[in-house]
Amino acid sequence: MNDYPVTSRNRVKRAHERGRYDRETVHAILDAGIICHLGYSIDGQPFVTPTSYWRDGETVYVHGSSASRTLRDMGGGIEACLAVTHLDGMVLARSGYHHSMNYRSVIMYGTAKPVTDPDEILAALKIFMDQITPGRWDECRPVNEQELKATCVLAMKLEDVSAKVRTGPPVDDEADYASPMWAGVVPIHTVAGDPIADPRLPDGVPAPDFATSFKFTA
Amino acid sequence: MNDYPVTSRNRVKRAHERGRYDRETVHAILDAGIICHLGYSIDGQPFVTPTSYWRDGETVYVHGSSASRTLRDMGGGIEACLAVTHLDGMVLARSGYHHSMNYRSVIMYGTAKPVTDPDEILAALKIFMDQITPGRWDECRPVNEQELKATCVLAMKLEDVSAKVRTGPPVDDEADYASPMWAGVVPIHTVAGDPIADPRLPDGVPAPDFATSFKFTA
Repeated sequence: MNDYPVTSRNRVKRAHERGRYDRETVHAILDAGIICHLGYSIDGQPFVTPTSYWRDGETVYVHGSSASRTLRDMGGGIEACLAVTHLDGMVLARSGYHHSMNYRSVIMYGTAKPVTDPDEILAALKIFMDQITPGRWDECRPVNEQELKATCVLAMKLEDVSAKVRTGPPVDDEADYASPMWAGVVPIHTVAGDPIADPRLPDGVPAPDFATSFKFTA
Repeated sequence: MNDYPVTSRNRVKRAHERGRYDRETVHAILDAGIICHLGYSIDGQPFVTPTSYWRDGETVYVHGSSASRTLRDMGGGIEACLAVTHLDGMVLARSGYHHSMNYRSVIMYGTAKPVTDPDEILAALKIFMDQITPGRWDECRPVNEQELKATCVLAMKLEDVSAKVRTGPPVDDEADYASPMWAGVVPIHTVAGDPIADPRLPDGVPAPDFATSFKFTA
Protein backbone atom coordinates (compact mmCIF):
# COMPACT_ATOMS: atom_id res chain seq x y z
CA MET A 1 0.00 0.00 0.00
CA ASN A 2 1.08 3.49 -0.70
CA ASP A 3 -0.94 4.96 2.17
CA TYR A 4 0.05 5.31 5.80
CA PRO A 5 -2.34 3.46 8.10
CA VAL A 6 -5.02 5.61 9.67
CA THR A 7 -5.04 5.37 13.45
CA SER A 8 -7.01 7.02 16.21
CA ARG A 9 -4.03 9.31 16.70
CA ASN A 10 -3.26 10.46 13.17
CA ARG A 11 -6.80 10.55 11.79
CA VAL A 12 -7.71 14.06 10.68
CA LYS A 13 -10.77 14.94 12.72
CA ARG A 14 -11.66 18.53 11.85
CA ALA A 15 -12.33 19.19 8.18
CA HIS A 16 -11.55 15.52 7.62
CA GLU A 17 -12.08 15.91 3.86
CA ARG A 18 -8.77 17.76 3.87
CA GLY A 19 -6.92 14.77 5.32
CA ARG A 20 -4.39 12.90 3.19
CA TYR A 21 -2.59 9.72 4.10
CA ASP A 22 -0.67 8.91 0.92
CA ARG A 23 3.11 8.82 0.97
CA GLU A 24 3.43 11.08 -2.07
CA THR A 25 1.56 13.96 -0.42
CA VAL A 26 3.24 13.52 2.96
CA HIS A 27 6.71 13.34 1.40
CA ALA A 28 6.11 16.36 -0.85
CA ILE A 29 4.97 18.54 2.06
CA LEU A 30 7.92 17.49 4.19
CA ASP A 31 10.38 18.04 1.34
CA ALA A 32 9.08 21.56 0.69
CA GLY A 33 10.14 22.87 4.08
CA ILE A 34 13.04 23.14 6.44
CA ILE A 35 11.54 24.26 9.77
CA CYS A 36 9.41 21.92 11.84
CA HIS A 37 7.86 22.38 15.26
CA LEU A 38 8.71 19.52 17.56
CA GLY A 39 6.35 18.98 20.46
CA TYR A 40 7.06 16.86 23.51
CA SER A 41 6.06 16.79 27.10
CA ILE A 42 8.12 16.57 30.28
CA ASP A 43 6.23 15.87 33.49
CA GLY A 44 3.06 17.07 31.80
CA GLN A 45 4.62 20.37 30.71
CA PRO A 46 4.32 20.76 26.94
CA PHE A 47 7.28 22.13 24.99
CA VAL A 48 7.44 23.14 21.35
CA THR A 49 10.81 23.67 19.69
CA PRO A 50 11.22 25.12 16.21
CA THR A 51 14.09 23.38 14.50
CA SER A 52 15.28 22.28 11.10
CA TYR A 53 14.49 18.79 9.82
CA TRP A 54 15.07 16.63 6.79
CA ARG A 55 13.68 13.41 5.35
CA ASP A 56 15.51 10.36 4.06
CA GLY A 57 13.06 7.74 2.83
CA GLU A 58 10.71 6.94 5.68
CA THR A 59 12.79 8.66 8.34
CA VAL A 60 12.61 12.27 9.45
CA TYR A 61 15.64 13.70 11.21
CA VAL A 62 16.20 16.67 13.46
CA HIS A 63 19.50 17.74 14.91
CA GLY A 64 20.89 20.09 17.46
CA SER A 65 23.38 20.49 20.21
CA SER A 66 23.97 17.50 22.44
CA ALA A 67 23.75 19.93 25.31
CA SER A 68 20.30 21.27 24.46
CA ARG A 69 17.48 20.60 26.82
CA THR A 70 15.19 19.38 24.07
CA LEU A 71 17.53 16.88 22.59
CA ARG A 72 19.09 15.77 25.84
CA ASP A 73 15.70 15.05 27.31
CA MET A 74 14.79 13.15 24.18
CA GLY A 75 18.03 11.23 24.38
CA GLY A 76 16.55 7.96 25.46
CA GLY A 77 13.86 8.31 22.86
CA ILE A 78 10.70 10.08 23.86
CA GLU A 79 7.23 10.52 22.47
CA ALA A 80 7.07 13.44 20.11
CA CYS A 81 4.74 15.17 17.71
CA LEU A 82 6.40 16.81 14.74
CA ALA A 83 4.50 19.41 12.69
CA VAL A 84 5.39 20.97 9.34
CA THR A 85 3.14 23.72 8.02
CA HIS A 86 3.18 25.73 4.79
CA LEU A 87 0.82 28.69 4.56
CA ASP A 88 -0.27 29.03 0.92
CA GLY A 89 -2.94 31.69 1.01
CA MET A 90 -5.38 33.84 2.89
CA VAL A 91 -8.94 32.91 1.97
CA LEU A 92 -11.19 35.95 2.15
CA ALA A 93 -14.85 34.98 2.27
CA ARG A 94 -18.09 36.92 2.46
CA SER A 95 -18.68 36.13 6.12
CA GLY A 96 -16.18 36.18 8.94
CA TYR A 97 -16.98 32.57 9.68
CA HIS A 98 -15.93 31.28 6.27
CA HIS A 99 -12.62 33.10 6.19
CA SER A 100 -9.90 30.50 6.03
CA MET A 101 -6.38 29.78 4.91
CA ASN A 102 -4.93 27.58 2.23
CA TYR A 103 -2.19 25.41 3.63
CA ARG A 104 -0.34 22.13 3.50
CA SER A 105 0.59 20.51 6.79
CA VAL A 106 1.98 17.25 8.08
CA ILE A 107 1.65 16.00 11.64
CA MET A 108 3.64 12.94 12.64
CA TYR A 109 3.63 11.06 15.93
CA GLY A 110 6.20 8.68 17.23
CA THR A 111 9.31 8.17 19.27
CA ALA A 112 12.23 10.44 18.52
CA LYS A 113 15.28 8.23 18.94
CA PRO A 114 18.90 9.33 19.09
CA VAL A 115 21.17 8.14 16.33
CA THR A 116 24.22 6.81 18.15
CA ASP A 117 26.51 5.50 15.41
CA PRO A 118 28.91 8.32 14.38
CA ASP A 119 28.99 7.13 10.76
CA GLU A 120 25.23 7.16 10.64
CA ILE A 121 25.16 10.67 12.12
CA LEU A 122 27.61 11.90 9.49
CA ALA A 123 25.67 10.17 6.72
CA ALA A 124 22.43 11.78 7.89
CA LEU A 125 24.00 15.24 8.11
CA LYS A 126 25.47 14.84 4.61
CA ILE A 127 22.01 14.00 3.24
CA PHE A 128 20.60 17.13 4.90
CA MET A 129 23.25 19.36 3.41
CA ASP A 130 23.19 17.74 -0.02
CA GLN A 131 19.45 18.26 -0.25
CA ILE A 132 19.53 22.02 0.19
CA THR A 133 23.08 22.89 -0.89
CA PRO A 134 24.21 20.17 -3.33
CA GLY A 135 27.94 19.59 -3.28
CA ARG A 136 28.61 21.73 -0.23
CA TRP A 137 29.30 18.85 2.14
CA ASP A 138 32.37 17.83 0.15
CA GLU A 139 33.51 21.45 -0.17
CA CYS A 140 33.26 22.19 3.57
CA ARG A 141 36.06 21.71 6.03
CA PRO A 142 35.34 18.21 7.38
CA VAL A 143 33.48 17.72 10.65
CA ASN A 144 35.94 17.21 13.47
CA GLU A 145 35.57 14.91 16.45
CA GLN A 146 34.62 17.66 18.87
CA GLU A 147 31.87 18.91 16.55
CA LEU A 148 30.56 15.39 16.05
CA LYS A 149 30.40 14.88 19.81
CA ALA A 150 28.53 18.15 20.20
CA THR A 151 25.93 17.21 17.60
CA CYS A 152 22.87 15.18 18.41
CA VAL A 153 20.71 13.69 15.65
CA LEU A 154 17.28 12.26 16.36
CA ALA A 155 15.31 10.04 14.01
CA MET A 156 11.55 9.56 13.79
CA LYS A 157 9.92 6.96 11.57
CA LEU A 158 7.12 7.98 9.22
CA GLU A 159 4.40 5.64 10.43
CA ASP A 160 1.75 7.46 12.41
CA VAL A 161 1.39 10.46 10.14
CA SER A 162 -1.17 12.45 8.22
CA ALA A 163 -1.26 15.46 5.95
CA LYS A 164 -3.92 18.11 5.68
CA VAL A 165 -4.39 20.31 2.64
CA ARG A 166 -6.74 23.16 1.79
CA THR A 167 -6.72 24.74 -1.65
CA GLY A 168 -9.02 26.93 -3.70
CA PRO A 169 -11.44 29.79 -3.25
CA PRO A 170 -13.66 30.53 -0.24
CA VAL A 171 -16.69 28.33 0.30
CA ASP A 172 -19.47 30.67 1.34
CA ASP A 173 -23.03 30.14 2.40
CA GLU A 174 -25.10 30.16 -0.77
CA ALA A 175 -27.03 33.29 0.21
CA ASP A 176 -23.80 35.22 0.81
CA TYR A 177 -22.65 34.93 -2.82
CA ALA A 178 -25.01 37.81 -3.61
CA SER A 179 -22.80 40.09 -1.49
CA PRO A 180 -21.16 42.91 -3.45
CA MET A 181 -17.89 42.59 -1.51
CA TRP A 182 -14.64 41.27 -2.98
CA ALA A 183 -13.81 37.68 -2.15
CA GLY A 184 -10.97 35.44 -3.15
CA VAL A 185 -7.52 34.28 -2.18
CA VAL A 186 -4.32 36.18 -1.46
CA PRO A 187 -1.52 33.69 -2.25
CA ILE A 188 1.37 33.52 0.19
CA HIS A 189 4.79 32.35 -0.91
CA THR A 190 8.11 31.71 0.75
CA VAL A 191 10.89 32.98 -1.49
CA ALA A 192 14.64 33.35 -1.39
CA GLY A 193 16.29 36.72 -1.99
CA ASP A 194 19.66 37.45 -3.54
CA PRO A 195 22.54 35.91 -1.57
CA ILE A 196 24.45 38.25 0.74
CA ALA A 197 28.15 37.47 0.76
CA ASP A 198 29.90 37.19 4.12
CA PRO A 199 31.77 40.50 4.67
CA ARG A 200 34.91 38.46 5.22
CA LEU A 201 34.61 36.67 1.87
CA PRO A 202 37.49 37.55 -0.48
CA ASP A 203 36.44 39.49 -3.59
CA GLY A 204 35.59 37.53 -6.67
CA VAL A 205 34.18 34.37 -5.12
CA PRO A 206 30.94 33.76 -7.02
CA ALA A 207 27.82 32.62 -5.19
CA PRO A 208 27.03 29.02 -6.12
CA ASP A 209 23.81 28.03 -7.91
CA PHE A 210 22.22 26.69 -4.74
CA ALA A 211 22.56 30.16 -3.22
CA THR A 212 21.45 32.20 -6.25
CA SER A 213 18.41 29.99 -6.89
CA PHE A 214 17.80 28.61 -3.45
CA LYS A 215 15.13 26.02 -2.85
CA PHE A 216 14.55 23.71 0.07
CA THR A 217 14.73 20.47 -1.86
CA ALA A 218 17.45 19.56 -4.31
CA MET B 1 9.59 47.26 33.52
CA ASN B 2 9.45 46.72 29.83
CA ASP B 3 10.88 43.20 30.01
CA TYR B 4 9.07 39.96 30.71
CA PRO B 5 10.42 38.22 33.79
CA VAL B 6 12.92 35.47 33.12
CA THR B 7 11.90 32.15 34.65
CA SER B 8 13.35 28.66 34.61
CA ARG B 9 10.79 27.84 31.95
CA ASN B 10 11.18 30.69 29.48
CA ARG B 11 14.92 31.29 29.86
CA VAL B 12 16.68 30.74 26.53
CA LYS B 13 19.21 28.00 27.25
CA ARG B 14 20.90 27.21 23.95
CA ALA B 15 22.63 30.13 22.25
CA HIS B 16 21.40 32.24 25.14
CA GLU B 17 22.94 35.37 23.64
CA ARG B 18 20.10 35.22 21.11
CA GLY B 19 17.45 35.43 23.83
CA ARG B 20 15.28 38.52 24.13
CA TYR B 21 12.77 39.29 26.83
CA ASP B 22 11.65 42.80 25.96
CA ARG B 23 8.04 43.45 25.06
CA GLU B 24 8.92 45.34 21.90
CA THR B 25 10.77 42.39 20.36
CA VAL B 26 8.21 39.81 21.49
CA HIS B 27 5.29 41.89 20.20
CA ALA B 28 6.97 42.62 16.86
CA ILE B 29 7.67 38.93 16.21
CA LEU B 30 4.14 37.94 17.13
CA ASP B 31 2.65 40.71 15.00
CA ALA B 32 4.67 39.68 11.95
CA GLY B 33 3.00 36.29 11.66
CA ILE B 34 -0.33 34.55 11.48
CA ILE B 35 0.42 30.85 12.02
CA CYS B 36 1.51 29.55 15.40
CA HIS B 37 2.16 26.01 16.59
CA LEU B 38 0.26 25.23 19.74
CA GLY B 39 1.63 22.41 21.85
CA TYR B 40 -0.19 20.62 24.62
CA SER B 41 -0.19 17.25 26.19
CA ILE B 42 -3.01 14.84 26.97
CA ASP B 43 -2.17 11.91 29.22
CA GLY B 44 1.49 12.38 28.36
CA GLN B 45 0.85 12.32 24.60
CA PRO B 46 2.18 15.51 23.02
CA PHE B 47 0.13 17.24 20.34
CA VAL B 48 1.11 20.15 18.12
CA THR B 49 -1.57 22.02 16.20
CA PRO B 50 -0.79 24.64 13.57
CA THR B 51 -3.38 27.38 13.81
CA SER B 52 -3.83 31.09 13.30
CA TYR B 53 -3.35 33.50 16.20
CA TRP B 54 -3.47 37.19 16.95
CA ARG B 55 -2.35 39.53 19.71
CA ASP B 56 -4.28 42.22 21.53
CA GLY B 57 -2.08 43.94 24.10
CA GLU B 58 -0.74 41.28 26.43
CA THR B 59 -3.12 38.56 25.26
CA VAL B 60 -2.59 36.09 22.43
CA TYR B 61 -5.70 34.46 20.98
CA VAL B 62 -6.29 31.36 18.94
CA HIS B 63 -9.62 30.20 17.62
CA GLY B 64 -11.20 27.21 16.01
CA SER B 65 -14.20 25.02 15.96
CA SER B 66 -15.88 24.29 19.28
CA ALA B 67 -15.98 20.70 18.13
CA SER B 68 -12.25 20.34 17.55
CA ARG B 69 -10.27 18.02 19.69
CA THR B 70 -7.59 20.57 20.43
CA LEU B 71 -9.89 23.30 21.55
CA ARG B 72 -12.40 21.09 23.27
CA ASP B 73 -9.70 19.45 25.30
CA MET B 74 -8.37 22.86 26.18
CA GLY B 75 -11.85 23.99 27.14
CA GLY B 76 -11.28 24.07 30.85
CA GLY B 77 -7.99 25.81 30.31
CA ILE B 78 -4.93 23.67 29.91
CA GLU B 79 -1.20 24.12 29.93
CA ALA B 80 0.08 25.06 26.53
CA CYS B 81 3.22 26.13 24.74
CA LEU B 82 2.72 28.43 21.79
CA ALA B 83 5.50 28.92 19.25
CA VAL B 84 5.79 31.46 16.44
CA THR B 85 8.77 31.18 14.09
CA HIS B 86 9.92 33.28 11.16
CA LEU B 87 12.72 31.91 9.01
CA ASP B 88 14.76 34.85 7.73
CA GLY B 89 17.75 33.28 6.06
CA MET B 90 19.95 30.29 5.41
CA VAL B 91 23.41 30.88 6.87
CA LEU B 92 26.04 29.10 4.77
CA ALA B 93 29.28 28.75 6.65
CA ARG B 94 32.67 27.25 5.81
CA SER B 95 32.14 24.16 7.94
CA GLY B 96 29.04 22.03 8.21
CA TYR B 97 28.98 22.66 11.93
CA HIS B 98 28.64 26.42 11.64
CA HIS B 99 25.83 26.35 9.11
CA SER B 100 22.84 28.00 10.68
CA MET B 101 19.67 29.91 10.03
CA ASN B 102 18.60 33.46 10.69
CA TYR B 103 15.26 33.53 12.42
CA ARG B 104 12.97 35.27 14.86
CA SER B 105 10.93 33.13 17.22
CA VAL B 106 8.73 33.49 20.25
CA ILE B 107 7.89 30.73 22.69
CA MET B 108 5.20 31.37 25.27
CA TYR B 109 4.03 29.18 28.11
CA GLY B 110 0.82 29.39 30.05
CA THR B 111 -2.73 28.30 30.40
CA ALA B 112 -4.93 28.59 27.34
CA LYS B 113 -8.31 29.64 28.70
CA PRO B 114 -11.59 29.69 26.80
CA VAL B 115 -13.25 33.06 26.32
CA THR B 116 -16.84 32.47 27.37
CA ASP B 117 -18.53 35.86 26.99
CA PRO B 118 -20.05 36.07 23.47
CA ASP B 119 -19.39 39.82 23.26
CA GLU B 120 -15.77 39.27 24.17
CA ILE B 121 -15.50 36.52 21.54
CA LEU B 122 -16.91 38.83 18.88
CA ALA B 123 -14.64 41.68 19.98
CA ALA B 124 -11.60 39.41 19.78
CA LEU B 125 -12.55 38.11 16.33
CA LYS B 126 -13.10 41.66 15.10
CA ILE B 127 -9.61 42.63 16.27
CA PHE B 128 -8.16 39.66 14.40
CA MET B 129 -9.89 40.55 11.18
CA ASP B 130 -9.23 44.28 11.45
CA GLN B 131 -5.51 43.63 11.88
CA ILE B 132 -5.06 41.76 8.63
CA THR B 133 -7.99 43.01 6.55
CA PRO B 134 -8.90 46.48 7.85
CA GLY B 135 -12.57 47.31 7.43
CA ARG B 136 -13.63 43.84 6.38
CA TRP B 137 -15.40 42.96 9.62
CA ASP B 138 -17.97 45.71 9.06
CA GLU B 139 -18.33 44.76 5.39
CA CYS B 140 -18.96 41.05 6.08
CA ARG B 141 -22.34 39.51 6.64
CA PRO B 142 -22.62 39.57 10.46
CA VAL B 143 -21.78 36.49 12.52
CA ASN B 144 -24.95 34.57 13.32
CA GLU B 145 -25.76 32.75 16.52
CA GLN B 146 -25.02 29.30 15.13
CA GLU B 147 -21.58 30.41 13.93
CA LEU B 148 -20.83 32.02 17.25
CA LYS B 149 -21.74 28.81 19.06
CA ALA B 150 -19.49 26.85 16.73
CA THR B 151 -16.52 29.11 17.37
CA CYS B 152 -14.17 28.67 20.27
CA VAL B 153 -11.66 31.36 21.22
CA LEU B 154 -8.83 30.70 23.64
CA ALA B 155 -6.74 33.36 25.34
CA MET B 156 -3.19 33.09 26.65
CA LYS B 157 -1.53 35.83 28.65
CA LEU B 158 1.93 37.06 27.64
CA GLU B 159 3.78 36.43 30.89
CA ASP B 160 6.10 33.45 30.63
CA VAL B 161 7.55 34.23 27.23
CA SER B 162 10.82 34.71 25.42
CA ALA B 163 12.04 35.55 21.97
CA LYS B 164 15.10 34.29 20.15
CA VAL B 165 16.72 36.07 17.24
CA ARG B 166 19.66 35.29 14.99
CA THR B 167 20.82 37.76 12.38
CA GLY B 168 23.92 38.35 10.30
CA PRO B 169 26.61 36.37 8.51
CA PRO B 170 28.06 33.00 9.46
CA VAL B 171 30.41 32.85 12.41
CA ASP B 172 33.19 30.51 11.39
CA ASP B 173 36.20 29.14 13.17
CA GLU B 174 39.00 31.62 12.59
CA ALA B 175 41.13 29.16 10.61
CA ASP B 176 38.25 28.42 8.26
CA TYR B 177 38.03 32.00 6.95
CA ALA B 178 40.99 31.14 4.70
CA SER B 179 38.73 28.72 2.80
CA PRO B 180 38.17 29.65 -0.85
CA MET B 181 34.50 28.62 -0.73
CA TRP B 182 31.58 31.02 -0.91
CA ALA B 183 29.95 31.84 2.41
CA GLY B 184 27.11 34.13 3.33
CA VAL B 185 23.37 34.31 3.81
CA VAL B 186 20.47 33.46 1.52
CA PRO B 187 17.61 35.66 2.77
CA ILE B 188 14.19 34.02 3.00
CA HIS B 189 11.01 36.07 2.79
CA THR B 190 7.31 35.41 3.08
CA VAL B 191 5.50 37.41 0.44
CA ALA B 192 1.96 37.83 -0.84
CA GLY B 193 1.14 37.33 -4.50
CA ASP B 194 -1.53 39.00 -6.61
CA PRO B 195 -5.04 38.35 -5.28
CA ILE B 196 -7.04 35.67 -7.09
CA ALA B 197 -10.72 36.61 -7.32
CA ASP B 198 -13.28 33.99 -6.36
CA PRO B 199 -14.63 32.49 -9.64
CA ARG B 200 -18.11 33.36 -8.42
CA LEU B 201 -17.26 37.03 -7.89
CA PRO B 202 -19.23 39.31 -10.25
CA ASP B 203 -17.11 41.15 -12.83
CA GLY B 204 -15.82 44.56 -11.90
CA VAL B 205 -15.42 44.17 -8.14
CA PRO B 206 -11.97 45.57 -7.40
CA ALA B 207 -9.68 43.83 -4.93
CA PRO B 208 -9.31 45.96 -1.80
CA ASP B 209 -5.98 47.40 -0.70
CA PHE B 210 -5.54 44.81 2.03
CA ALA B 211 -5.63 42.13 -0.67
CA THR B 212 -3.44 43.86 -3.26
CA SER B 213 -0.78 44.77 -0.70
CA PHE B 214 -1.33 42.13 1.89
CA LYS B 215 0.60 42.14 5.14
CA PHE B 216 -0.03 40.35 8.38
CA THR B 217 -0.25 43.41 10.56
CA ALA B 218 -2.31 46.49 9.81
